[in-house]
Amino acid sequence: MMNAAIRPGAGVLGLPATDIGAVVSGAVVADAVIMGLPFDAGVTGVPGQRHGPEIFRGLSPSHDWSLDDSGVLGGLIDPLTGGPVLSGCRVFDLGDLGGVPIDPRVERNAYYRALTTLTQQLAKTSAIPLFIGGDHSVSAPIAAGLAAEHGPVHVVCFDAHCDFSTRPMPALADITHGDFLGHLFQAGVVTGCELYGVRTYLPASCGPLPDNLRCAYEYGFAEPSKVPDDYRDHGSSRAHGGEDNCEEGRPTYLSIDLDVIDPTEFPATGHPEAGGYRLRELLAAVQHVCRTRRVVAVDIVEALQDDRENRATSATISALVMRCLRTLLESDQGRVRTQ
Amino acid sequence: MMNAAIRPGAGVLGLPATDIGAVVSGAVVADAVIMGLPFDAGVTGVPGQRHGPEIFRGLSPSHDWSLDDSGVLGGLIDPLTGGPVLSGCRVFDLGDLGGVPIDPRVERNAYYRALTTLTQQLAKTSAIPLFIGGDHSVSAPIAAGLAAEHGPVHVVCFDAHCDFSTRPMPALADITHGDFLGHLFQAGVVTGCELYGVRTYLPASCGPLPDNLRCAYEYGFAEPSKVPDDYRDHGSSRAHGGEDNCEEGRPTYLSIDLDVIDPTEFPATGHPEAGGYRLRELLAAVQHVCRTRRVVAVDIVEALQDDRENRATSATISALVMRCLRTLLESDQGRVRTQ
Amino acid sequence: MMNAAIRPGAGVLGLPATDIGAVVSGAVVADAVIMGLPFDAGVTGVPGQRHGPEIFRGLSPSHDWSLDDSGVLGGLIDPLTGGPVLSGCRVFDLGDLGGVPIDPRVERNAYYRALTTLTQQLAKTSAIPLFIGGDHSVSAPIAAGLAAEHGPVHVVCFDAHCDFSTRPMPALADITHGDFLGHLFQAGVVTGCELYGVRTYLPASCGPLPDNLRCAYEYGFAEPSKVPDDYRDHGSSRAHGGEDNCEEGRPTYLSIDLDVIDPTEFPATGHPEAGGYRLRELLAAVQHVCRTRRVVAVDIVEALQDDRENRATSATISALVMRCLRTLLESDQGRVRTQ
Amino acid sequence: MMNAAIRPGAGVLGLPATDIGAVVSGAVVADAVIMGLPFDAGVTGVPGQRHGPEIFRGLSPSHDWSLDDSGVLGGLIDPLTGGPVLSGCRVFDLGDLGGVPIDPRVERNAYYRALTTLTQQLAKTSAIPLFIGGDHSVSAPIAAGLAAEHGPVHVVCFDAHCDFSTRPMPALADITHGDFLGHLFQAGVVTGCELYGVRTYLPASCGPLPDNLRCAYEYGFAEPSKVPDDYRDHGSSRAHGGEDNCEEGRPTYLSIDLDVIDPTEFPATGHPEAGGYRLRELLAAVQHVCRTRRVVAVDIVEALQDDRENRATSATISALVMRCLRTLLESDQGRVRTQ
Amino acid sequence: MMNAAIRPGAGVLGLPATDIGAVVSGAVVADAVIMGLPFDAGVTGVPGQRHGPEIFRGLSPSHDWSLDDSGVLGGLIDPLTGGPVLSGCRVFDLGDLGGVPIDPRVERNAYYRALTTLTQQLAKTSAIPLFIGGDHSVSAPIAAGLAAEHGPVHVVCFDAHCDFSTRPMPALADITHGDFLGHLFQAGVVTGCELYGVRTYLPASCGPLPDNLRCAYEYGFAEPSKVPDDYRDHGSSRAHGGEDNCEEGRPTYLSIDLDVIDPTEFPATGHPEAGGYRLRELLAAVQHVCRTRRVVAVDIVEALQDDRENRATSATISALVMRCLRTLLESDQGRVRTQ
Amino acid sequence: MMNAAIRPGAGVLGLPATDIGAVVSGAVVADAVIMGLPFDAGVTGVPGQRHGPEIFRGLSPSHDWSLDDSGVLGGLIDPLTGGPVLSGCRVFDLGDLGGVPIDPRVERNAYYRALTTLTQQLAKTSAIPLFIGGDHSVSAPIAAGLAAEHGPVHVVCFDAHCDFSTRPMPALADITHGDFLGHLFQAGVVTGCELYGVRTYLPASCGPLPDNLRCAYEYGFAEPSKVPDDYRDHGSSRAHGGEDNCEEGRPTYLSIDLDVIDPTEFPATGHPEAGGYRLRELLAAVQHVCRTRRVVAVDIVEALQDDRENRATSATISALVMRCLRTLLESDQGRVRTQ
Repeated sequence: MMNAAIRPGAGVLGLPATDIGAVVSGAVVADAVIMGLPFDAGVTGVPGQRHGPEIFRGLSPSHDWSLDDSGVLGGLIDPLTGGPVLSGCRVFDLGDLGGVPIDPRVERNAYYRALTTLTQQLAKTSAIPLFIGGDHSVSAPIAAGLAAEHGPVHVVCFDAHCDFSTRPMPALADITHGDFLGHLFQAGVVTGCELYGVRTYLPASCGPLPDNLRCAYEYGFAEPSKVPDDYRDHGSSRAHGGEDNCEEGRPTYLSIDLDVIDPTEFPATGHPEAGGYRLRELLAAVQHVCRTRRVVAVDIVEALQDDRENRATSATISALVMRCLRTLLESDQGRVRTQ
Repeated sequence: MMNAAIRPGAGVLGLPATDIGAVVSGAVVADAVIMGLPFDAGVTGVPGQRHGPEIFRGLSPSHDWSLDDSGVLGGLIDPLTGGPVLSGCRVFDLGDLGGVPIDPRVERNAYYRALTTLTQQLAKTSAIPLFIGGDHSVSAPIAAGLAAEHGPVHVVCFDAHCDFSTRPMPALADITHGDFLGHLFQAGVVTGCELYGVRTYLPASCGPLPDNLRCAYEYGFAEPSKVPDDYRDHGSSRAHGGEDNCEEGRPTYLSIDLDVIDPTEFPATGHPEAGGYRLRELLAAVQHVCRTRRVVAVDIVEALQDDRENRATSATISALVMRCLRTLLESDQGRVRTQ
Repeated sequence: MMNAAIRPGAGVLGLPATDIGAVVSGAVVADAVIMGLPFDAGVTGVPGQRHGPEIFRGLSPSHDWSLDDSGVLGGLIDPLTGGPVLSGCRVFDLGDLGGVPIDPRVERNAYYRALTTLTQQLAKTSAIPLFIGGDHSVSAPIAAGLAAEHGPVHVVCFDAHCDFSTRPMPALADITHGDFLGHLFQAGVVTGCELYGVRTYLPASCGPLPDNLRCAYEYGFAEPSKVPDDYRDHGSSRAHGGEDNCEEGRPTYLSIDLDVIDPTEFPATGHPEAGGYRLRELLAAVQHVCRTRRVVAVDIVEALQDDRENRATSATISALVMRCLRTLLESDQGRVRTQ
Repeated sequence: MMNAAIRPGAGVLGLPATDIGAVVSGAVVADAVIMGLPFDAGVTGVPGQRHGPEIFRGLSPSHDWSLDDSGVLGGLIDPLTGGPVLSGCRVFDLGDLGGVPIDPRVERNAYYRALTTLTQQLAKTSAIPLFIGGDHSVSAPIAAGLAAEHGPVHVVCFDAHCDFSTRPMPALADITHGDFLGHLFQAGVVTGCELYGVRTYLPASCGPLPDNLRCAYEYGFAEPSKVPDDYRDHGSSRAHGGEDNCEEGRPTYLSIDLDVIDPTEFPATGHPEAGGYRLRELLAAVQHVCRTRRVVAVDIVEALQDDRENRATSATISALVMRCLRTLLESDQGRVRTQ
Repeated sequence: MMNAAIRPGAGVLGLPATDIGAVVSGAVVADAVIMGLPFDAGVTGVPGQRHGPEIFRGLSPSHDWSLDDSGVLGGLIDPLTGGPVLSGCRVFDLGDLGGVPIDPRVERNAYYRALTTLTQQLAKTSAIPLFIGGDHSVSAPIAAGLAAEHGPVHVVCFDAHCDFSTRPMPALADITHGDFLGHLFQAGVVTGCELYGVRTYLPASCGPLPDNLRCAYEYGFAEPSKVPDDYRDHGSSRAHGGEDNCEEGRPTYLSIDLDVIDPTEFPATGHPEAGGYRLRELLAAVQHVCRTRRVVAVDIVEALQDDRENRATSATISALVMRCLRTLLESDQGRVRTQ
Repeated sequence: MMNAAIRPGAGVLGLPATDIGAVVSGAVVADAVIMGLPFDAGVTGVPGQRHGPEIFRGLSPSHDWSLDDSGVLGGLIDPLTGGPVLSGCRVFDLGDLGGVPIDPRVERNAYYRALTTLTQQLAKTSAIPLFIGGDHSVSAPIAAGLAAEHGPVHVVCFDAHCDFSTRPMPALADITHGDFLGHLFQAGVVTGCELYGVRTYLPASCGPLPDNLRCAYEYGFAEPSKVPDDYRDHGSSRAHGGEDNCEEGRPTYLSIDLDVIDPTEFPATGHPEAGGYRLRELLAAVQHVCRTRRVVAVDIVEALQDDRENRATSATISALVMRCLRTLLESDQGRVRTQ
């Protein structure tokens, strides 16, 4: 008999839905969970990222999964392999933290605090959380929640912008979606950050960049052992412990700002920058990160409402979510896990 | 020699700019002032109204006014009359309260309070303020500021929605852009409200509507004396004084939610409703209000950023601003003034 | 206890849903029913009308109706009157005849036959059916079903085109969406037809037009008694009986081809024609028809899928459906009813 | 046998085509002719008006006219009347003066001179020319050509702008598309001008406007006798002769700048102005002009290339051309003709 | 003297046109022919593919070919080589099978049968047919016609979807555009199929996939000898004969579903899938197929009408047609031919 | 104290502005200058290129440069390197030659002559000019001006079209934007031309192409020494002197027609051709040219006004300008310089 806490087919992508309480309490055991963060109070320029989860839910393909009583997935074939998709995995949609219409009377600090708590709770379970934003500032409370459980994390971020500043921002309340990395470094929540896809400049007042903040346009597809020594050294000296003091074993937070994609493929973002990634390039890079790092959480942020482009928005997020889930969960993907 | 506080041609529409302090202190005497309110923290659904003033400023036509030393306008011909435009009038752009990029660390209550204070200061001067939103919730602090000087005001509002609710909202902090009228009635800030262009329903829980809140689709162009007696009675009993206790003499706040216009003419708004006004119809109705009521302030709100439509957005706001200014200020318009 | 055949809130516009069998059998008593017709096999040019019901369902506003146990509606306020909306009325969504993805293996004649049968069954009940197309050719089998119960009907049609031809088309299988009226006249299913909004020409080979087919651009808002005598005569001589041989008493089929609206307000149609109605004009004309004629069925057809315009499409259909329902069902609308 | 100079169905709207030489020589007798003017070298701002004729030709509806041997039209029914369309009339497409791709080596003065000559030649025949622009500056050489044959003409112009200036421009080479009326007044080519739809301002340096240049937003539908006396007086005192010294008898040049239409209905123009006419309003006004004045030539100008809007552009021009032709040529329209 | 059956310049791309009868009878000898298939009755979702040929014809570039009396091409230079384009080749446009407006009274089985017959007739000539769809279901009757002449064919297909199902579909009448490959396998019409560009999942009920149906995202550009042995074995064991039992010699049908291209480059298709090919990648892959396989027919299908995108649609089809023609026909392309 | 001729922050991209006279006279010393050419009188098809500079100026990012008294730049960090951007370089915006609204009374020959003179003056200074068009015909007078100072130049051109013809065009007045290279070859102004990105055909009448005009689709990234000998030979024999008679030393004019980019990334051009470059590919190729050739001038041409795409247009031009400036001016780029 189906676990009463599970609602088959009620989630995004046709996945089963359940409540966060059921996962945190252990009533439902999950390998991964999806959660929407309809929030854009961290935005300085064009807002509307609150609609990201709504668009993803409303227009994503609804797959015909089969489900056993504990919510284990089956039922889909991948024509590329002839084999099954996420077969044997347990993935649940936990709904949104808040919702649209939002209540403008809730202050943003309260939202950040709730998100930190929720992330820490999930980090204690077997489930890898995938958060769908919302604006990029949500990555700060998520990282704080991860660090509360895992210790300081490594961040791999795809982003057209370097969301960094050296201005003092001791509290979460001090961040914006454009400089939140500064807070994470100042608060000691992260051991380092790799940023890929960057193609904009910073005023000199934002710098200098810390050594363990590394920006590149291309994602190199290097195996971890190929990372230059000086970087590895810098990074490991700040790692929080011995057992995972090399990069591939370190708990890693993968953050995908959708503006890393070229505006012609993904226009519905607030600060589009010409010359970005193709979705296919991003999918390959994300797959490589998921395979070679010990990913403990993922976010996909900065999708904007835009009547014309909702369908592309949803398709893009859907492709990224499925690629992350399959690489992280399918047993033959050889990804880095902790023993 | 030009008054040093005046910056010729530096304002929107090619108007002179000055600072609010100069107007409040009397250093610059104005008949009307324009101020942007880049604010959308009162929005529950689609945000982005913070960009309204920016779009209006960026794309409005820049007229070739001439200016005398005290900032009196000249230099434009209206081909329809062959005569001058706003000749002899003193109109200044005061800039924005806040700006884009906004600082997400400023709380919305602080913004509302600043706006109330500023409105009250302006209400003490000879200048009629025209506010460019921003979301519709800014009308609440503006009305509060007007009432602090004028006593409770009458509101004439063009809006596709009836932004009303009976839920208790004693403080400005309790409002949203969709129900702020409830606060104004509860706080005794208004003596009544006429809403034109309404074409949506309300859940029963929002009602019942007070007698002095009147909704209509069509603007009737009735002369004030034609208003039904029962309405007049209701209204006047709550008027704040004797000398202007009939509607035309009562201080009136004109609030224009741009979603009253049909979405085909003005799509760049958060909650478009089919079947709205043409701009031309709205211009005629607004002109009639400005002619027949004692208008003490105007707002034009709920323009949204939208790449495709910025030019239409700016043109629409420009047309409304010019129509208000000319009807309120040109001497042959026969509008209601206090002696 | 709620009638088990009724599914509260499961229908379009937040209305209750039920099955056609429940209505036909009398298990559910309805004043009006809504049914989607996802069909476009009658189209010669641009197809895609099959998506009309899907768009209407997917994007229409979902009102917060209350419902008593037999499905009687309540819960909405109209701010224009302060009074309730469709209060005391029984309106159900019956779902679609067929669906998208459609099965291309079903022949169009089979579809037409099923639609005729279903219409005749509904015509025996108290419910006025509102059909959401689909292409305009569905009006032919609907008219046939109505005539099987009511005798020949009068047609009032809003359309940019005169969908008529004198070529022989004895069977439903002979029609297209552009000439189906020819079949209705040839088959004696209609007593006459008024077409409003026409703004295109016909090749001479399509004519001459019969006397009881009358085309006009403007809808005249004339009271029935104002209809010219010769037309009334023509019409009544072909009416099927004495008791309703004047136009207002004659069973009337109201057919709304959405291309009657101007393409700037409703672009998502296959054969847009410049210079059409505004939605507001159409709503007023439709309301007048519903008030002054004995309307026994309504269709709203020829909406096309179009990514950009789905929201406008749904809003337009929603407005038309609500206007028809309120005028036909609210007790104070004074519409023509039989004894 | 068909007149060898006539090419049936080869013209725009399915009309017959012929060469200008055939019309000027009398080999083909015409009631009206259509000619494209792919020219935009008079534009100061957004160019591309050269594509107007191409768009009109490429996407206009191709009617199934019948033709007798001398090119007399038949074959179309108007469903609104049941009667024929342009039956018995002789209308030919003369092609374009120049073409796209244009030859940038041709100077604009040469183009203006050729157009003046061609217009004068046509003015000697029975044919009323309809010119499809092209930018508005083409109206100046056309007016010059008309005046060379008819004497100074009266101009009725629909335009969002008042294309006038008092700066000296003695030669055609001195004009732009935004001030060409100044040249016509200075050169004595026109007796007066009525401008309808104007909704922009002029710098004071452009004025003052001459008495016989009258601007209005609304087209008044006044019968000629209703024109205010002072205007009539001004006008007639400058008329070139006695037999047509009242306005209705004066040779009148009708010029339609498509930007008079609201940008939501006709966006493809270089200087859109919010708050314009609906196409239907323009059609009615144009019909009234054609009925009540002695129209000797028509132009329709300022359509811009724009991928999205070409279809609307062509449909709008087509509707205007058909309305002009039918009002000017169908015998029951009671229009003003010279005896 | 020009062969009377040839109409110079009357075809798409400025190519000569002729009738299918002339090619089948041998009156005109062709190396390749182009034929439009305006058909979309096999579509379950978004229709409109009937407009594909119309769009291709209406907006493709019209090259200035020279022609000798038997229709041999010349006259174009390729700047990349300095050399001629298709010089010495005989390519004709045969027009469409059916046309728009289509006649909805023609059943789809009749269309499929006519297409099978026509394909078989062409397969007996020297001409390689290029079909322009239309929906993808047309590939089934084409394959049947090819197999009737050549024996079972190999299919190389570019497609975002795997149009396959194991449900029984013995007759052509049983297919849809989304599963037609199932019929081809069941009917023994094909020896195997390679699908490139696939990026969607299938429900388990559609499988398992046969061994000789191979899906990949990337086109490998492998020489035939590089194909893995197991696939080659599987394939050849089902080949119909000895002389072409290796893949490169086997008659191959190249089918290009335009949705293989990324929606940002080719949005005008019914089921766009994010993350597709660039046109340039597709051109290179198609060229490789044409060079290394014995291609006996080509189709390009699933272009949809879409006002905004017609120009891109036509340009894309034009580029694919020219690449196929040049690779298949120009003598220095070293492609696989039968001796 | 800041050089009085320098206006900090007044130029495009936040750069300092100065006047051309100041640069030519030596009052301001520059390493590079930017100049707009709002000109489209060389266009045969879709015009509007006059708006290119306006769009680039209006919507480009305004960087926060610091400036020393002689205009030396600082203040920006590149996150990719952590290092400064254009630090120590002197780059000025010189404004436009002409402006929008343009004066249609200025003949195009006068414009070409002024541009030739201005280019020659700049070529005598230390500044590398970057011209922002405008249509591609401006490259001819620029090349003439360069050659007047440097002797015949080598041209590296990115373009979807081969703008060449062999028809005689002895004078600048004979060119169009589609064949201006013919004039440059005939006039002996260039020693050769490499064209990259070409993907269209030419009529045979345009040929044969000269040996030293080489077209390719792909940019090869070959080091100069890898250029095939026969080309090198051809080229060098026509080089104007000994010291730079190999390609890398030859003065090279880099001309970028924006239509080389794929229309999905850069649609706002007059003659889009499917299958073009990605911006990223173009940036890499342009960078390679700037590094390996002795570039003496750059142009970026053929951007068209298009309301929807202005932002993409500006972003694309901005990226190209910054890439050229950094590669040409930053000291560690190892680019080819003279002596």
